[in-house]
Amino acid sequence: MLATVIEQISITNIGNKMNHSLDAIFRPKSVAVVGASARKGSLGREIFDKLLNTEFNGPLYPVNPNAKYIHSVKAYASISAIPDAVDLAVVVVPKEHVFGVLHECAENGVKGVVVITAGFRETGERGAAEEQKMVKLIKSHGMRMVGPNCMGIINSDPEVRLDTTFAPTVPETGNIALASQSGALGQTILEHAHELNLGISMFISVGNKADVSGNDLLEYWKDDPAIDVILMYLEGFDKPRRFIELARETSRKKPIVVVKSGRTSSGARAATSHTGALAGMDVAYDALFKQCGVIRADTINDMFDFAMGFANVPLPRGNRVAIVSNAGGPGIMAADACESFGLEVAELGEKTRKRLKEELVPDASVDNPVDLLAGAQPEEFLSALTEVLHDKNIDAAIVIFVAPIITNPQHVALKIAEAAAEFDKPVLGCFMGVRGVARGIEELHRQRIPAYPFPESAARTLAAMVRYSVWLEQPQEGVVSFEVDTENARKIVRTAIREQREYLTPGESLDMLNIYGIPCAKAEICRDLQEILGCARKMQFPLVLKVASVQVVHKSEVGGVKLNLQTEAALRSAYEELRVSLQAHDVGADLVGFLVQEMVVDGREIIMGLHNAGKFGSLVAFGLGGIYVEVLRDVVFRIAPITGLDAVQMMEEINGYPILQGIRGEKPIAFAAVKEVLMRLSQLSVDLPEIQELDLNPFLVFPEKEKCVSVDVRIRVA
Amino acid sequence: MLATVIEQISITNIGNKMNHSLDAIFRPKSVAVVGASARKGSLGREIFDKLLNTEFNGPLYPVNPNAKYIHSVKAYASISAIPDAVDLAVVVVPKEHVFGVLHECAENGVKGVVVITAGFRETGERGAAEEQKMVKLIKSHGMRMVGPNCMGIINSDPEVRLDTTFAPTVPETGNIALASQSGALGQTILEHAHELNLGISMFISVGNKADVSGNDLLEYWKDDPAIDVILMYLEGFDKPRRFIELARETSRKKPIVVVKSGRTSSGARAATSHTGALAGMDVAYDALFKQCGVIRADTINDMFDFAMGFANVPLPRGNRVAIVSNAGGPGIMAADACESFGLEVAELGEKTRKRLKEELVPDASVDNPVDLLAGAQPEEFLSALTEVLHDKNIDAAIVIFVAPIITNPQHVALKIAEAAAEFDKPVLGCFMGVRGVARGIEELHRQRIPAYPFPESAARTLAAMVRYSVWLEQPQEGVVSFEVDTENARKIVRTAIREQREYLTPGESLDMLNIYGIPCAKAEICRDLQEILGCARKMQFPLVLKVASVQVVHKSEVGGVKLNLQTEAALRSAYEELRVSLQAHDVGADLVGFLVQEMVVDGREIIMGLHNAGKFGSLVAFGLGGIYVEVLRDVVFRIAPITGLDAVQMMEEINGYPILQGIRGEKPIAFAAVKEVLMRLSQLSVDLPEIQELDLNPFLVFPEKEKCVSVDVRIRVA
Repeated sequence: MLATVIEQISITNIGNKMNHSLDAIFRPKSVAVVGASARKGSLGREIFDKLLNTEFNGPLYPVNPNAKYIHSVKAYASISAIPDAVDLAVVVVPKEHVFGVLHECAENGVKGVVVITAGFRETGERGAAEEQKMVKLIKSHGMRMVGPNCMGIINSDPEVRLDTTFAPTVPETGNIALASQSGALGQTILEHAHELNLGISMFISVGNKADVSGNDLLEYWKDDPAIDVILMYLEGFDKPRRFIELARETSRKKPIVVVKSGRTSSGARAATSHTGALAGMDVAYDALFKQCGVIRADTINDMFDFAMGFANVPLPRGNRVAIVSNAGGPGIMAADACESFGLEVAELGEKTRKRLKEELVPDASVDNPVDLLAGAQPEEFLSALTEVLHDKNIDAAIVIFVAPIITNPQHVALKIAEAAAEFDKPVLGCFMGVRGVARGIEELHRQRIPAYPFPESAARTLAAMVRYSVWLEQPQEGVVSFEVDTENARKIVRTAIREQREYLTPGESLDMLNIYGIPCAKAEICRDLQEILGCARKMQFPLVLKVASVQVVHKSEVGGVKLNLQTEAALRSAYEELRVSLQAHDVGADLVGFLVQEMVVDGREIIMGLHNAGKFGSLVAFGLGGIYVEVLRDVVFRIAPITGLDAVQMMEEINGYPILQGIRGEKPIAFAAVKEVLMRLSQLSVDLPEIQELDLNPFLVFPEKEKCVSVDVRIRVA
Repeated sequence: MLATVIEQISITNIGNKMNHSLDAIFRPKSVAVVGASARKGSLGREIFDKLLNTEFNGPLYPVNPNAKYIHSVKAYASISAIPDAVDLAVVVVPKEHVFGVLHECAENGVKGVVVITAGFRETGERGAAEEQKMVKLIKSHGMRMVGPNCMGIINSDPEVRLDTTFAPTVPETGNIALASQSGALGQTILEHAHELNLGISMFISVGNKADVSGNDLLEYWKDDPAIDVILMYLEGFDKPRRFIELARETSRKKPIVVVKSGRTSSGARAATSHTGALAGMDVAYDALFKQCGVIRADTINDMFDFAMGFANVPLPRGNRVAIVSNAGGPGIMAADACESFGLEVAELGEKTRKRLKEELVPDASVDNPVDLLAGAQPEEFLSALTEVLHDKNIDAAIVIFVAPIITNPQHVALKIAEAAAEFDKPVLGCFMGVRGVARGIEELHRQRIPAYPFPESAARTLAAMVRYSVWLEQPQEGVVSFEVDTENARKIVRTAIREQREYLTPGESLDMLNIYGIPCAKAEICRDLQEILGCARKMQFPLVLKVASVQVVHKSEVGGVKLNLQTEAALRSAYEELRVSLQAHDVGADLVGFLVQEMVVDGREIIMGLHNAGKFGSLVAFGLGGIYVEVLRDVVFRIAPITGLDAVQMMEEINGYPILQGIRGEKPIAFAAVKEVLMRLSQLSVDLPEIQELDLNPFLVFPEKEKCVSVDVRIRVA
């Protein structure tokens, strides 16, 4: 008992300490720029000027052995020459001097460093070793480091006013935190944010993430009340499991929008076998994001579109959207987009339609999309928007304005804001055009109504907000633990590893499933025809006879499976055929034996399995089985451990879900049985991380829970 | 012989006449603005001013009974008061006066009218009747009309300089023709074109298309050498089959990019049955665009992205793309996008890599994507781009520039243009950022290098260009005609219609397939058990027994199909079961009989069929059969008649194509057999347009051509 309390306390302390240490970087009281230069246009000068011009809230110390002053500020030859305490050092010296500077920082009590200089891990082994040395140094002195190879950091808090980036853009202050793993993208990102009037609270170019990583930032931002939305551009994680923990907790409080690039190249890291071939790394990222409520954006453009929504308007309580437009075409385009992103272009209530009829011009359409017609004045936007937002059938609105020469777009924007302010429902603006609507878009920005140039972006954003909202609402379930003889399971795996076998034998595999309570078709392993016939007598025809060899992975390719054997005679001749076929395929020496199995008929085929995804842990897979899994790729993944809800959502997510529900009068399959198997598989993967891959393929499902069984299993351990 | 020549000559004349008549609208020598107004801000005034300010190349006549002059130009009380000939009248009077004005135009020899005034077909029946009256009037006088309810037309040819739109934007002159079915979108479209520096040759807001339609414009633009790219925003066709003809011909000469909205609402027009449920109208549009080489863009944004590519750079000869970037992250994003849009991020040749190694800085990556690193200067863009374009493995290049403060984006743009000019391969630019790269984007525009803000747009455009290129290259095949006893087929259909039956009887359906040479499993219709047993003796067991009733559409739902009957006894008891089940389902009176069929085992199931899509003609369908067609919707469509190439592409297009090719050692199916059946179905649908729907479901396919057969057919005629 006491031990637990002590453990918890020290965890809390670590947390506090961590935050403090990052404060030295993100909320420093004094900053030195090591490598500040008198030469205009140089990085060292640009960074110093940026800090100075944006009026860092504390003293700045340029460090340069060859300058007396830089930009009218007294310069120092070294960190140690500075008479006052320095919290943060921005390091922009040539790479061969970086380590020396860090050393000096450490000796002079500097608490944090931002290393702009590049030429480390990203250039190869030598640079990586140099970087490791730096990490060791700063860790041993309790310092923290952003970078190397980064473009700097921004904290726009008026009490801090820290901007060490060399980007010319100075973002507005606001409620968005932004982390970018690509330094080069930094300026682009800042410019786009500025263009969309998105206020930035903090911006961190994480560079090589030698010390401070995305995970550290999540932890730092999680409870910061100044931050409402977190945006991240990522190329990869070092510690995905820590990310899951942090992101899950953070997502409960504020949305995290992530762009993760490298989807296809990582997808190409295909494993050789079944589930492996499908479970490229990108599916792991995708599963991870889904499981912790992270909103994945496909592009930087989408990320900003989403940010405009999340940062400015309330979350929708449902997916029913009203479209109000002064033009028919864009209204249709918006309806198309909404439906294709899973939103419902809901029918307006009788009362709403009646009131719209009264308030709008006679030719206006009062169905959804509401078409105000080209002559619509600002007042008509106000009244139409007010009416649809008042409607109980509506959770959100998209307002489209196409500028005719007669209407003032700024006035329309003001009226939209006026209507939106009265309701706790999100309103997204779509002002189509460029110069003709520019004043309107500016006004929407001022009024904190998201403004999109095309209806598709508005619909895509609203759909992302609905998904997040649904995730927030869903019940929080724990992971169920089943009682299992873990010790015996471990023994099986250890034996296989000790004997340097890649796969468990068919017998071991069956034992493993039995231990974990995963139902299998009745089966036995036999060594010869005599045993086969003996087993058959204890079973019910029809039977299946399979080669039970470790070597023959895809049995059907060598004709190693004989199905639907109705009689003993059929069994005998199947055995003979198998022997001949095996000889023809040069299989024999390592043959373990034959598997006699009761044939399961008429079930629907699914596949379930596990795939070890390295640092991510294990992926649990579910899909439509048989050959379709390979061709149609109708499979979904989650990272273990999974909850019951995860299991249910996996089943619902596949395209073939209606087949499981039953079509043309079929009964639904026993979903509860499958759910339980998925959860048990998840537990198995957590208990036995040595398992690289496990396939239940096919697993046959029926409406009756007790009939659902695995008819083939393959377990790879190394 | 002579008759044919005469026919051809008159067709040519009609063509010429058509063009001449449209010239009166698009190349008028004189223009009257009826409803021109002295009041600034009014539509009539704005339009007159626009024509005047853009210096229409001919005399302008304002027509207004209450004004002596308008904008310093002498005004006339009516068309008839104008002393000179008027080619084109722009009509902007209140709707109640429109007909009178048209009448006056007709009487005074005006050849074309553009009716801006709204309030006709779009407002309901009364307006539609009024519009019909207008059409009758102008047709009887050999006039042509654009509109009503449109925002005008533009012809930027310096010899014409006609701009009757009330949009404030004046587009650059150039090689793009643009037609919009949404007037409201007009200004937006013109503004975006202007923003992207896209030169417009002609712009037509077609409005209600009472006379001049998109088809007329295609015909008019097809051979105009000033036009290289045609863009269309459509909400629907009145004459899809004419569009197919024209678009197919036009696409051979220049690309047509279309946005067709109303995808989802039209998709909802689901028919009740199988193929029908899948063949919403949007699949018809999709098939149509595909078959005539039209490039479909999902959004207005995409349309402009594509236009930038098509209007400015050569078509790629293949899909192998090189990416050159000064930043890693955007390079990855571009690679992701390319791969996901079907482009190949091709390996660079050994020689190219060697030369890049020599020319670039040591840390630069010389694999594809080529990463020049942040410090890259304009010269490095020039040499890297030159090298990759020189590579025989590369068909196109995407160049990404992320502005670091050190490099001048305009110089980079110039070097990109310099490299691109040396090769007949498309180069697409992606300059990321806003203000930081603005000068670079402007320079790219000037140099006619497409410029995109994000890599995804560049990749999407290049992929569209590759698709068009592939379409252009593919062999042009005619439609094959099979010898068929059409007369007998017509008799079957006529009989069913005369007897007011919705479906053909199973017997008639089998006859129909036989007439068209579509193979079926051996089957006969029997009235009672006696006949059934008689048939069975002439066939090979196992057999199938089915209810052959017109009423029982989905037989499996009432248990109306008994499969795999191995013996006569099994057949007898199956018959008894069927009788009982039918009684239970109240089927009996209209029962035609029973179908005894040889059971086909082990084939792969596909579905083929026809669906009458009204004005589009018939859709030919192909997909993976069985229950999967309904759930996974793996079906593709083409509009009949189809060529052999169409049939082959249909098979290749489904997701399940690898299943047909054979997986795990299976042989490929007899594609030739399926191809022929698709072509025969196509011919059937053209011969017998009364057929509403035809399903071969399932059709069983084998590696052996002669084994491929339909095992169930259903034909609906009304």
